[in-house]
Amino acid sequence: MVTASNGSRRRRSSSPRPEVSVLRVGHRVGRDPRLTTHLALTARAFGAARMLLHPPDPDLARRVAAVVDRWGGTFEVQPANEWRATVKGFDGVVVHLTMYGLPLDRVLPRLAPARRILLVVGGAKVPPDLYRLARYNVAVGHQPHSEVAALAVALERLLGVPGPRPIPGARQHLVPRARGKRVVGGREK
Amino acid sequence: MVTASNGSRRRRSSSPRPEVSVLRVGHRVGRDPRLTTHLALTARAFGAARMLLHPPDPDLARRVAAVVDRWGGTFEVQPANEWRATVKGFDGVVVHLTMYGLPLDRVLPRLAPARRILLVVGGAKVPPDLYRLARYNVAVGHQPHSEVAALAVALERLLGVPGPRPIPGARQHLVPRARGKRVVGGREK
Repeated sequence: MVTASNGSRRRRSSSPRPEVSVLRVGHRVGRDPRLTTHLALTARAFGAARMLLHPPDPDLARRVAAVVDRWGGTFEVQPANEWRATVKGFDGVVVHLTMYGLPLDRVLPRLAPARRILLVVGGAKVPPDLYRLARYNVAVGHQPHSEVAALAVALERLLGVPGPRPIPGARQHLVPRARGKRVVGGREK
Repeated sequence: MVTASNGSRRRRSSSPRPEVSVLRVGHRVGRDPRLTTHLALTARAFGAARMLLHPPDPDLARRVAAVVDRWGGTFEVQPANEWRATVKGFDGVVVHLTMYGLPLDRVLPRLAPARRILLVVGGAKVPPDLYRLARYNVAVGHQPHSEVAALAVALERLLGVPGPRPIPGARQHLVPRARGKRVVGGREK
């Protein structure tokens, strides 16, 4: 069984963790920087290696890079000028997160052997051919909600909720507390 | 153990499901309607009963009500004029989701007996007394990410990922598909 009670990785210990990348399709530069920033930070916090962004948004990439600089790791927001080329050329399993797809828990066992996974997250309007180009179309719940929520739960089920250990390269990290805040390093009080 | 493989509720079958409400503190009317809308729809899709919103935002509540009208259920966005009164008067366990708190998986066993849970979600700036007023301060990961992601994973761990069955009162629902879209009822193609 998965080990869920101690906050550590929940993937079966017999399977090595896959490397997960995220592709955000349909970002609207200037219109939804906050939502896409939430997506990027969620991808990073839940263990994805990178987020490919279509269309590219260098300002957003820089803001996320500033977070990485403080909190550690090697996560990057990379430009995806041609998202179809990114999907077609991906050396691994492409999973499109959509409320119209198959239930996540039904597909998860098929993803267990995958060493590299690309999670594709659309906006409100998704190009129809994405459904065909993806190996799997997967739903996290079958109701309208949020691509941030879908990505978080998918990553949590693939990689687990990361524990409180500092990420390598971090200038600051948190110490979990029952009350209040404790930040080690950095400039925060 | 939890039952995770069939997409159904993952709480131990010996514990009845709690009724979960969400309190969003620090909403900025006009500034972040989309993020708070994502929070509300995530709350609904993952089985929360209601979202209390401070400060109130009747337009947002109406937009979410339109989703409920189509997709079913009794979820509501309700005004919380005085969030401290909402927290202090809550008849159940108040859990503040914050990256500074204790790991979710460490706190989950203590929540198992709870019949009513209030998940409090802040914005960028959280009133400091919230840390003291909440029974638990709980982190979903210990890195900066997104309140939408934190809420989704917390609800998923408390209530599971809802399956594809239509919600009572729904005028339309989805049928999960490996490719493309299938909506039953409503007006979508």
